[in-house]
Amino acid sequence: MAKLLIDIHTHVYLPRYVSFLRARSSVPRIFSRNTAEGKTEERLLILDGEPSGGRPMGPQYWDREQKLSFMDRHGIDISLVSSANPWLDFLPASTAHSLANELNNDLEEYCSTSPSLSAAGGTTKRLYGFGLLPLVPDVPITSLVDTVKQITKLEHLKGIILGTHGVGKGLDDDALEPVWSAIAEAGLVVFLHPHYGVDGKEWGKKDNGHVLPLALGFPFETTIAATRLILSGVFDRHPDLRILLAHSGGTLPQLSSRLASCIDHDPIVASRLQHDARYYLGKLYFDAVAYGAEELGFVSDAIGRAEWFAARPSSAAASKEQGLALRALGSKRMLFGTDHPFFPPLSSTEKWKSVVENLEAIDGVHGWSETEKDAVRGRNALALFGIPSAK
Amino acid sequence: MAKLLIDIHTHVYLPRYVSFLRARSSVPRIFSRNTAEGKTEERLLILDGEPSGGRPMGPQYWDREQKLSFMDRHGIDISLVSSANPWLDFLPASTAHSLANELNNDLEEYCSTSPSLSAAGGTTKRLYGFGLLPLVPDVPITSLVDTVKQITKLEHLKGIILGTHGVGKGLDDDALEPVWSAIAEAGLVVFLHPHYGVDGKEWGKKDNGHVLPLALGFPFETTIAATRLILSGVFDRHPDLRILLAHSGGTLPQLSSRLASCIDHDPIVASRLQHDARYYLGKLYFDAVAYGAEELGFVSDAIGRAEWFAARPSSAAASKEQGLALRALGSKRMLFGTDHPFFPPLSSTEKWKSVVENLEAIDGVHGWSETEKDAVRGRNALALFGIPSAK
Repeated sequence: MAKLLIDIHTHVYLPRYVSFLRARSSVPRIFSRNTAEGKTEERLLILDGEPSGGRPMGPQYWDREQKLSFMDRHGIDISLVSSANPWLDFLPASTAHSLANELNNDLEEYCSTSPSLSAAGGTTKRLYGFGLLPLVPDVPITSLVDTVKQITKLEHLKGIILGTHGVGKGLDDDALEPVWSAIAEAGLVVFLHPHYGVDGKEWGKKDNGHVLPLALGFPFETTIAATRLILSGVFDRHPDLRILLAHSGGTLPQLSSRLASCIDHDPIVASRLQHDARYYLGKLYFDAVAYGAEELGFVSDAIGRAEWFAARPSSAAASKEQGLALRALGSKRMLFGTDHPFFPPLSSTEKWKSVVENLEAIDGVHGWSETEKDAVRGRNALALFGIPSAK
Repeated sequence: MAKLLIDIHTHVYLPRYVSFLRARSSVPRIFSRNTAEGKTEERLLILDGEPSGGRPMGPQYWDREQKLSFMDRHGIDISLVSSANPWLDFLPASTAHSLANELNNDLEEYCSTSPSLSAAGGTTKRLYGFGLLPLVPDVPITSLVDTVKQITKLEHLKGIILGTHGVGKGLDDDALEPVWSAIAEAGLVVFLHPHYGVDGKEWGKKDNGHVLPLALGFPFETTIAATRLILSGVFDRHPDLRILLAHSGGTLPQLSSRLASCIDHDPIVASRLQHDARYYLGKLYFDAVAYGAEELGFVSDAIGRAEWFAARPSSAAASKEQGLALRALGSKRMLFGTDHPFFPPLSSTEKWKSVVENLEAIDGVHGWSETEKDAVRGRNALALFGIPSAK
C-alpha cells in the first residue's frame, strides 16, 4: 500500500455559506473595505471585538481549486474537509436546519466531484467531508437525528463537525442522547472543534492580537467540552462513539491525571463513571495539530496508558513497566492535520510554516518508528474514516 | 549528602488569618454549622456559589503540629509553606498592607521556631515559607516594594506566593515593574498560584461538584497568567527572576508550541519578544504536582527543549537529535509538592493518596534516573531556595 498523507483538519466556507455571511450586518459576517493601497478587500469577522477588524478573506476559504493546489504543494493526498466555525450557531432553528441540509449536499458535491486519488481514475477521491448539524437552541432533536441520517446517506461525508454549545446547554446535555445514539449507530466520526474560547476578560488589557484566544482559549474550550462529555457518561453509554478532538485534545492530556484525582476525591461524581477519567482518552481520537514533537509524544503516552485505567481502582505502578511502548500504542489514535486555510504564512513561500511544523513534529517524536509516523500521517485516517485506499 | 524529600507546595491558613475569616460575613469566610450527627463543624467558603457549602475546615489548616505530623507520615523532611488562597485579594489596600506584614512575621516565627532538620540541632529547619504581598487594587506600589523588603529580611521566608490578579489588571501590568525588580534583586522565588479559575459559566448546568473548577479552572488560570507574563516581556527584562508555577505549569507546556506558532503569525506581538515562546519555559520552575508520570516526563521535555529556542527563528529539527536527554535536563527545574492540606483522603488511611500519587509519578517517569528523581524530590529545592542541607 502506498504511503498517503491525509489531512483530517482542514476547513472550508462553502460558497453558499460565504454568500450568506456577505448578506449579514452583524457578526459573523463578511464585509468589504478599501485598503491603504486603494484596493477592495473582504474581511471575515467571526466574533464581536476581534482585533484588527477580523481576518482577510479570499478564495482560499471557498475555492476548491485553491484547496487542491494547497494539497499539491504540501504533498497531501486526501483531505477530510470540514466547515469552519462558527457553523450555524448564530441562526434560528428553522434556518439552521434548512441551511445544514443544503450545505451538506453542497459538501457532498464538493467531494464527490473532486479528482480521483489515482491518475488512472477510481472511486477513491481526494476530498471527503464532515457534515454539519443544526445545533442551535430550540431545534427539535428530531431535526438533528434527521440530519444525521441525511449525512449518513451522503457517501463522501464521513463524519460531523461539532462545536461545543450543543442546543445551548453544552454537549453534556441529556437532550442530546438520541443524537449520540444516531451518530454511533451510523458509524460517523464526530470532529469536536472549538469556536468560543473562554470569557475574553481573562486576556487582560494588553493588545496581544489574536494570540491569547487562539493559543489558549480554543484549546481550553475543547478541553472543557471533552471533560464535560466524559463526566456525563456519554462514553460509558456509547462505547462505539468515535470522537476526534481538535488541536490534539487541547489540554485534556496534560490535565487528565489531575482530573482523575479530582474525581477520585468526589465520591458522587466518581460513582457516576465506570472508569478512571484517564481511561476515556483511549476512546478518543486526537489530531496531530500541536506544532511540537514533544507535545505529540506526550499525547500518545496519554492515549497509550488508557488501558491501565480500565479497572477502578487503577494501578499507576503499571507505568514503570512500559516506557516507550505506550507511545506506539497511542499513535494509533492520532491523525495529521493542517488547520488550512487558517495560520497562513506571512509572506509568500513555497510551503506553509504551520504545515511544515506539524509534519516536522510527527517526524520528530522520540519513540515513534516510521510505522507509527506513517500511521499518523495517513494510515489511521484511512481506517477511521473507512476510505478505500487502493481503488 | 543525605537524600531529602522537600515539599514546596503545601499551604497554611495562619491562626491570625483564620480569626480574620471567622469574623467575616461574606466570602471568603469561615462559618460554623451543625452536622447531622449534632456536632458543630467549621466550613471554609472561598468563593460564592461553591458546591456543598464549602469545604470542611479543621486544625490541619492552621496547626503546625498537624503539618509536621503529616510530613512525618509521608517522609517529608522539609516543607516550604505558603498561605492558601485567597490570600489578601479581597481586602482594602490599607488592611491588606498591614495584614501582609503581620502574616509575614507570623510565618517567619512559624518557620524559625520549627524543629531542626537534624535531631542533633543545627540551623536547617523543617519549615520555610513564602511570604505575602498586599496585591490589591489601589495599593501603592511602594507598599509592595516595602513588603518585598520586609520578606527579604525574614530569614526563613525564601519566596513570595502570588495570585494572578496583581493590583487588579493582572501580572502583565506595567505598574508592577518595580515589584519584579525588587523581587529579582532580592533573589526571592515567586510561587505563582491560581485562585479564581475561569468564568463559572463554562462549567455548564450539571452538578460536577468542585471537579471542573479544580481540575481545569485552576490550571487554566495559571496558564493564562504565565502566558501573559511571557508576552509582557517580563522574562526578557528580568532574566534573573525566578518564578515557580503551581500544578506543573497548568497547561502551559502542552500549549507552548501552539503559543509559539500563534505568536509567529502575529508580527507585532512577535517583535516585542526576544525569543520564541518555548524558550521562556526554560526560565521557569514547575512543581511536580500533576498526579501522573507521563505528565511529569512531558513537562521536563518542554523545559529541556527550551534552549533550542534561544535563537529566532529556531530550528525544531534539533529535536530529532535529543531523545531522552531533554528529560534529564528539564528535571532540574521541577520540584515535588503535595498541595496539603487540600486533596485529603476520603477515609482515614496511613498515607494520603494525593501524595502517594505524586511520589509514584516522580518514580515512574520514563527516562529519569535515580539522580533526576532525587533532584525533583529534594535536591532542586535546596538549590532554588538556598536552604543549607547539612547544618
